[in-house]
Amino acid sequence: MPKYVIGVDFGTESGRALLVDVADGREVATSVHPYANGVLDERLPADAGGVRLEPDWALQDPNDYLEVLKHAIPAVLAEGGASPEDVIGLGIDFTACTMLPTKADGTPLCFLPEYRSRPHAWVKLWKHHAAQPEANKLNEIARRLGYAFLDRYGGKISSEWFVPKAWQILDEDPEIYEHADRLLEAADWVVWQLTGVETRNLTTAGYKGIWSKHDGFPPNEFFRALDPRLERLVDDKLSRKIAELGQRAGGLTEQAAAWTGLRPDTAVAVANVDAHVAVPAATVTEAGRMVIIMGTSNCHMVLGTEERIVPGMCGYVEDGIIPGFFGYEAGQSCVGDHFAWFTENCVLAAYEREAEARGLNIHQLLEEKAAALQPGESGLLALDWWNGNRSVLVDVDLTGLLLGMTLLTRPEEIYRALIEATAYGTRVIIEAFAAHDVPVHEIVATGGLPDRNRLLMQIYADVTGRPIKVARTHQGGALGAAMHGAVAAGAAAGGYATIVEAARHMAGLRADQYEPNPDAKQVYDQLYAEYVTLHDYFGRGANDVMKRLKNLKAAVRG
Amino acid sequence: MPKYVIGVDFGTESGRALLVDVADGREVATSVHPYANGVLDERLPADAGGVRLEPDWALQDPNDYLEVLKHAIPAVLAEGGASPEDVIGLGIDFTACTMLPTKADGTPLCFLPEYRSRPHAWVKLWKHHAAQPEANKLNEIARRLGYAFLDRYGGKISSEWFVPKAWQILDEDPEIYEHADRLLEAADWVVWQLTGVETRNLTTAGYKGIWSKHDGFPPNEFFRALDPRLERLVDDKLSRKIAELGQRAGGLTEQAAAWTGLRPDTAVAVANVDAHVAVPAATVTEAGRMVIIMGTSNCHMVLGTEERIVPGMCGYVEDGIIPGFFGYEAGQSCVGDHFAWFTENCVLAAYEREAEARGLNIHQLLEEKAAALQPGESGLLALDWWNGNRSVLVDVDLTGLLLGMTLLTRPEEIYRALIEATAYGTRVIIEAFAAHDVPVHEIVATGGLPDRNRLLMQIYADVTGRPIKVARTHQGGALGAAMHGAVAAGAAAGGYATIVEAARHMAGLRADQYEPNPDAKQVYDQLYAEYVTLHDYFGRGANDVMKRLKNLKAAVRG
Repeated sequence: MPKYVIGVDFGTESGRALLVDVADGREVATSVHPYANGVLDERLPADAGGVRLEPDWALQDPNDYLEVLKHAIPAVLAEGGASPEDVIGLGIDFTACTMLPTKADGTPLCFLPEYRSRPHAWVKLWKHHAAQPEANKLNEIARRLGYAFLDRYGGKISSEWFVPKAWQILDEDPEIYEHADRLLEAADWVVWQLTGVETRNLTTAGYKGIWSKHDGFPPNEFFRALDPRLERLVDDKLSRKIAELGQRAGGLTEQAAAWTGLRPDTAVAVANVDAHVAVPAATVTEAGRMVIIMGTSNCHMVLGTEERIVPGMCGYVEDGIIPGFFGYEAGQSCVGDHFAWFTENCVLAAYEREAEARGLNIHQLLEEKAAALQPGESGLLALDWWNGNRSVLVDVDLTGLLLGMTLLTRPEEIYRALIEATAYGTRVIIEAFAAHDVPVHEIVATGGLPDRNRLLMQIYADVTGRPIKVARTHQGGALGAAMHGAVAAGAAAGGYATIVEAARHMAGLRADQYEPNPDAKQVYDQLYAEYVTLHDYFGRGANDVMKRLKNLKAAVRG
Repeated sequence: MPKYVIGVDFGTESGRALLVDVADGREVATSVHPYANGVLDERLPADAGGVRLEPDWALQDPNDYLEVLKHAIPAVLAEGGASPEDVIGLGIDFTACTMLPTKADGTPLCFLPEYRSRPHAWVKLWKHHAAQPEANKLNEIARRLGYAFLDRYGGKISSEWFVPKAWQILDEDPEIYEHADRLLEAADWVVWQLTGVETRNLTTAGYKGIWSKHDGFPPNEFFRALDPRLERLVDDKLSRKIAELGQRAGGLTEQAAAWTGLRPDTAVAVANVDAHVAVPAATVTEAGRMVIIMGTSNCHMVLGTEERIVPGMCGYVEDGIIPGFFGYEAGQSCVGDHFAWFTENCVLAAYEREAEARGLNIHQLLEEKAAALQPGESGLLALDWWNGNRSVLVDVDLTGLLLGMTLLTRPEEIYRALIEATAYGTRVIIEAFAAHDVPVHEIVATGGLPDRNRLLMQIYADVTGRPIKVARTHQGGALGAAMHGAVAAGAAAGGYATIVEAARHMAGLRADQYEPNPDAKQVYDQLYAEYVTLHDYFGRGANDVMKRLKNLKAAVRG
């Protein structure tokens, strides 16, 4: 009988379980379970009084995560015809930073009647942006006091990350803060529910929690400088014991075994983050090959053998992706979202009719029309900042730019210019890494876009001058989680000793790949030079018109 | 019985006759006659062999102008119930520079069988752009030899103007050039056909023919420097006798009387240009009030009491609009065209359906949605250069820019930003005039747009800080032409002694006008400052990215 592992990928709207053959990574069965309460961004659920939420809030219900375990795992066992005995390990990956307050025994405060109607008792989802004031204060204080950790995170701690979110609880509902015995990532909370053991994973600690292998967390006096009541945050509510990736967090409890249909004591891996776990699932366990997770946004992951400060990246963490390497992360905040904006706001009725008549979706029609154009033919150039710039400028207040329009400019030319702009943005990131001794000679793409848009893939190859391969799996998160489950189970149980071994056997690439076309590359080199000039002019302070317009807009809207 | 005058406005696609009451400017009847051969931009008519034309060519058939006289004038007489005895004068206005080669008796070369299939024998329409090489050479030589006339035309003679067009004939078909006894504006040719007298009008000579009251034409050695065969162009094929506006060119010939149904010897005014003749028709016969003719493009006309070099205008001519004043002209090459581009390329199917369901056209729907926005609310800023920049940069190679987009940007926000951009462009022109002692304290709008878009009018008032009035007439060209007909007839015949008198009686403003809103003005002052910074950055050489992209585009398209 084959041996299996299960990976569970906790996304923004649903969780997905994947049953995988340990021997070769074959994906045997998958099941998606939507979160009943989804993203809470307007009000709490009715049974919590329906309390209205402020703008920029985004909460979740931890019970929804348990429901995924109870439904999606039994579903893949049934669909795959696997018996619990053949499942040797379980791993999970999660959005991050997605965090919650609990009691000492792990009970979420929002499960308790006395706190249920208090928004701060709930899970703060990664895209909860209401801790911006705390993030601003934190950055200002850290900079003023000269804390070097800022350098590890492109100079700024994001409002999406752990400490600003914890601090927001204290600022706005100190009673919740006080009654929260533990503050932790939802990823770690789920592993706790599975194993009965509180375990803190290295990836979220490193990328979202200002922790590093060398320095640990910032010292208590830093937290005191933020707010005296935060001084003992780490000692009282977090943990200084950080578990490495691929470690066995514990075995399934009797209760979790009953939820999932798996055997008690099945190995459970230390939790991980969706983007990071997708790297070995894309076959990358060595330096020089960048993984880009391409979806609504782009996430760029690359391994380095040395510690390097690369300005403008999202962060780097030693052992944060693959043990033994520095894991570097960069990002673009608007990629698929960019094209979605275009189709929702700029698509002609005539094109809609043509797509319908030909049985295409609008992206397919636009891709076909845009693919008929040569590089440089439109005369257009865009800056891909519709949702700010994550790397390398780390500036949410930048906005979009499109240049070169004439009275003959057609929609497909604009569509192509937007694709090209995101490719230039990726090249800026690659060149920033290369300039700081983190070389990238090949790209492996994963995520939703590589399947949907061949034109985009070819443009990325032509613009970056790097060959692009595509990960075999369509479920990089769940497969990567399952691979970590195989490592947690260990070689003796039929799994693998290391994630490198697991990747060698379980991860793969597709046959199709994209080679840079030298003629296109030569044109794109010229366009890229123009992009960089505009990027620096608008992004590095020479003309802050985008910020002034945003300020004016905010003032006008009152 | 009332006395009448008739104005005939020769446009790009058709000619329009207007029967006007001399006493009060009442528009009694109007008739439009389309040109059978329209704009010839792909091939000559079948009876001319259907010869293919090069790109950028635009020709017309002079017979179409005669057909307008034969159909539209009798039509307004009939519709208005006017007897020929009551019509005291006739004036015409024309597009310019629209020119043709004729024999000494006025016969167009294209009427002669031996030349009919030769493209250069036909009328070159104002938007014939194929004389660009000649214009480039002319400008280079004039600059090198230090000819001051360039200063009168913003530093450049356009490829649309008379000398480049004449030179192109010589360059490409010297036999036609040789056999052309006369080269003249179509406006003057039509007056010749009406009166039997060759008359050259001051306006086209001044604005399009490098002539000035003070200096006349450039000296023959200048033309010799262009090409030795051009040395005697003025003496042999033009005329140094230039007729002033409002003068009587002559009386209708018997033949023309037969064509039109008017009495022989009816006074015919010296010809004029559509934009220029619209100024007195908009009540403006004094300094300080700018007329903007708003349509596919904007034409800005202002009178000054002194001669001033204002960099970047299209040109200025003493007595060129109203005798006794320097007539200054500036322009924006993309206004109505801008909005048409937007609706043809960027309008959502959902908006199309909404407009249809509500019985609106798409511009009305977009205007309604855009009018609900506050100045500054969109966070967008555009440069209105989709068709280059006429004033004050005089650069056809500039292209459009849109900046400030986010994922929440809506089509109506872009639409409003495009309107605002054209208003900023107008303010740049007004401020350039003001900075060189040609002040503008009020705007009178005329043309097609003021009727169609109240939002646009209010934005222009708010952006420029000037009150905007709207000319009463919807036919500024034809009314202005008719007014000049009344002056040609003279006071003794029931007309007027001067165009100022004619304007006092025959021109008017509408009741509705647009006052600048101080709050909006204050926001637009900030946005205008941003516009100027971008205008200068992209338009004055700091970053010539637009030109480089255009060159690349041309290279890619081969």
